[in-house]
Amino acid sequence: MPHSAGEAWFTERMLGLAGYSYRIKRTLHSEQSAYQQIDAYETHSHGNLLVLDGCIMLTERDEFIYHELLAHVAAQTIAAPSRAAVVGGGDGGVVRELLKYPELHVSLVEIDERVVRVSERLFPKVSAGLRDPRVSVLFEDGAKYLASRAEGELDLIVVDSTDPVGPATALVQDSFYAQAARVLSSKGVFVAQTQSPFFHAAEIRAIYAALGGSFDRVWMYWGVCPSYPGQLWTFCYASKGSHPLDDFDPPAGLSQRLGTGYYSAAVHRAAFALPPFVQALLPEGHSQRVDL
Amino acid sequence: MPHSAGEAWFTERMLGLAGYSYRIKRTLHSEQSAYQQIDAYETHSHGNLLVLDGCIMLTERDEFIYHELLAHVAAQTIAAPSRAAVVGGGDGGVVRELLKYPELHVSLVEIDERVVRVSERLFPKVSAGLRDPRVSVLFEDGAKYLASRAEGELDLIVVDSTDPVGPATALVQDSFYAQAARVLSSKGVFVAQTQSPFFHAAEIRAIYAALGGSFDRVWMYWGVCPSYPGQLWTFCYASKGSHPLDDFDPPAGLSQRLGTGYYSAAVHRAAFALPPFVQALLPEGHSQRVDL
Repeated sequence: MPHSAGEAWFTERMLGLAGYSYRIKRTLHSEQSAYQQIDAYETHSHGNLLVLDGCIMLTERDEFIYHELLAHVAAQTIAAPSRAAVVGGGDGGVVRELLKYPELHVSLVEIDERVVRVSERLFPKVSAGLRDPRVSVLFEDGAKYLASRAEGELDLIVVDSTDPVGPATALVQDSFYAQAARVLSSKGVFVAQTQSPFFHAAEIRAIYAALGGSFDRVWMYWGVCPSYPGQLWTFCYASKGSHPLDDFDPPAGLSQRLGTGYYSAAVHRAAFALPPFVQALLPEGHSQRVDL
Repeated sequence: MPHSAGEAWFTERMLGLAGYSYRIKRTLHSEQSAYQQIDAYETHSHGNLLVLDGCIMLTERDEFIYHELLAHVAAQTIAAPSRAAVVGGGDGGVVRELLKYPELHVSLVEIDERVVRVSERLFPKVSAGLRDPRVSVLFEDGAKYLASRAEGELDLIVVDSTDPVGPATALVQDSFYAQAARVLSSKGVFVAQTQSPFFHAAEIRAIYAALGGSFDRVWMYWGVCPSYPGQLWTFCYASKGSHPLDDFDPPAGLSQRLGTGYYSAAVHRAAFALPPFVQALLPEGHSQRVDL
């Protein structure tokens, strides 16, 4: 369909090589915060759209996929998790999912308060959990936060970061992973988004090599994130003891209990079945065998 | 990254609501055939790009995902398949994958000869199999072709069609599915691409309702097709007898044997784990339980 004059579109240019666009009704917000450019738009088909430094963070229509994958894959494999930290994720989507675990207390550690404020105003269904009494919202550097925690204090760390440039660079360093491993309990799990095999192969290789330096057990899993470059999006599951499949013993009707749109018991297991071209990005000796 | 003046891009506008773009080096081909507009471009990041009526059909970089999913999921569950027909698919990608089964003879039934000729010239890695002695290339209407076949003649029918508008409309009719069921052998399987849950929910409901009228057993499976709207792309597996999981007994090292980049034994099973929001598009009484 041709792009008619008079239509307004937002387009993310991925590395200057590919682009993803939504037709928009209007601009809802635009500001340069202390950390990044924050923009929000109302789209025709995907609800409201949040953009940081020109990169799509979420649309209301499909954000559930990414947030469910970051929250539930780990949380379902930790027996009675009680303390979690979310690093980044100022929109509140991961927190919303984690609040489905009634005993869990969550610290959201977001460097940019403005992301939280914009999400509270323009993305209420995503950010609603941020005012829950079980949630502490901290406007801090995530790396400094972890370094200040006590050993074994957390059962779950979720890194919901932007691409590893700008403010998120610190979140893919060896020292960050080492702090995460130190702060996790023996059953604890570290999860993070780890970019696109089509657009960030070198970054993925570096991230998994670095994770292997701090965690005995590292897995990759994946899902479809329609608003991110390449759309086949990867995540890491790193732990000192928990196993993403052997320690997964879901109740019947898991997705109905959680109210999830993408995540289910079968999807949990399927997410660890890596296509061979993705598997090939993992470091030598890190062959991930999954028997489904 | 801003879109600099002087850069050239191809953009598909999906229903006028979203867009997907590749930065291009040059236009390789442009013609109006008897059936559709055919364009090809050289991209910066994804090799050559084939476009029919403004919709991206494939890029050289990621076409393997779609073609492997259309070919192998069915072929791996049919004992000793000997006769297959591919309806549409004039680029040759599905045929290339099916030729990995040494006993299989394949008829490619493409209504538009020009698609085959353009693919032969500009997409040699995709179309190479079309000159194989086990392949018959027929420039015919796929619906008429099936209607002219004998009962039980084929073990596999693959429909690799464009969106169900224009020339492909006939390929989602009740009468087409009835002919497919008639022509299939008792172990035969019918597979087709069945569009995007995000952009074509109504079409998906209609397709699966119609399939249920001709086939006793219908499953949906899915994969990531980065160049198609919504990217989470669905496929149907319909049969009179074969079961996509119970009849799947792969040898060790399946993906290495086939030389596949996306498809593997684990990915085969994982592809039938439907996210709940996709499952919800299937007709009542068609609940697809997959125990992985």
